[in-house]
Amino acid sequence: MKVGKVIGSIWATRKAQCLQGQTFLVVESGGQEIVAADQVGAGPGDKVLLATGTVASRYCMDAPVDAAVVAIVDGEKER
Amino acid sequence: MKVGKVIGSIWATRKAQCLQGQTFLVVESGGQEIVAADQVGAGPGDKVLLATGTVASRYCMDAPVDAAVVAIVDGEKER
Amino acid sequence: MKVGKVIGSIWATRKAQCLQGQTFLVVESGGQEIVAADQVGAGPGDKVLLATGTVASRYCMDAPVDAAVVAIVDGEKER
Amino acid sequence: MKVGKVIGSIWATRKAQCLQGQTFLVVESGGQEIVAADQVGAGPGDKVLLATGTVASRYCMDAPVDAAVVAIVDGEKER
Amino acid sequence: MKVGKVIGSIWATRKAQCLQGQTFLVVESGGQEIVAADQVGAGPGDKVLLATGTVASRYCMDAPVDAAVVAIVDGEKER
Repeated sequence: MKVGKVIGSIWATRKAQCLQGQTFLVVESGGQEIVAADQVGAGPGDKVLLATGTVASRYCMDAPVDAAVVAIVDGEKER
Repeated sequence: MKVGKVIGSIWATRKAQCLQGQTFLVVESGGQEIVAADQVGAGPGDKVLLATGTVASRYCMDAPVDAAVVAIVDGEKER
Repeated sequence: MKVGKVIGSIWATRKAQCLQGQTFLVVESGGQEIVAADQVGAGPGDKVLLATGTVASRYCMDAPVDAAVVAIVDGEKER
Repeated sequence: MKVGKVIGSIWATRKAQCLQGQTFLVVESGGQEIVAADQVGAGPGDKVLLATGTVASRYCMDAPVDAAVVAIVDGEKER
Repeated sequence: MKVGKVIGSIWATRKAQCLQGQTFLVVESGGQEIVAADQVGAGPGDKVLLATGTVASRYCMDAPVDAAVVAIVDGEKER
């Protein structure tokens, strides 16, 4: 998984029906911008944990998404 | 997921039978060209949201595709 | 999916049993060499469409392959 | 799979319910930082083997994780 | 799939139970080191074909591995 920072959000009117009601956040991680479905309630500036691939879809009730916010990171302990 | 811009389309006569009727768009995202199945009705110049991997296939009735346009992006709010 | 060009083929005597009869093409795509199972009948020089991941395996009767040629590209329309 | 070194850990209060009780380690592998679920009992400084993707989720009782520590590496024999 | 060269092996005492008896080879492919489960019987110096992702796991009786040696390459025909 990747740790990233929420830097924005996107919206879309024309989309796959099964994406209705889904919130999409733009997350910056390692210099890359990833759009992730959010069901944890993250907001701009939050440091989040992303899961990608089929597991993200399964977590989002099988919606056609390949990235999801699964946690808001409280702390990190470097060795 | 990735946000990209539709820059063209491709067609193929000889292909997997289960790809009949599928539209393929060429999408530029982060300097990369990705070919994605489209069921949303996107066209050249549209800013789209791509889902990749098995979830794209499932969204396209299990066709052998690994990328699909799942939404046309209306707006983006940077923090 | 990726568009690539067939630049060769490989063969193997010792392999997973379920790979018997499978043809493997070497495809150049974006500066990378990818080995893909072929069931469309592509040959050297052909411009092909590759599907990768689990969907490639499913397309090849669940053989342990992670890339497959799913179409031979006839044309491409740039915007 | 990738070999990496455990360099820290992260924690999160707000997270997917199915992530309760899961330990997350930060693993450095090939210059990249990957967050992985741990069920082997690895600690800081350990050299570990990571599995990524859907298989990591399945190994962690279908939790929405895309990377997991599956072994602590004892030795490596270079040719 | 990727073609690579076996350059070593790794072993681990503490590991996921379902990894008992699994052999892990270190394969160099495109400048990257990948650890792959081997059920074909490859050894140091062998040129091998790797399958990655869920298909590798399925090939290895659903063990939590994301890369597997599926063939030993005998020859390659460049166009």
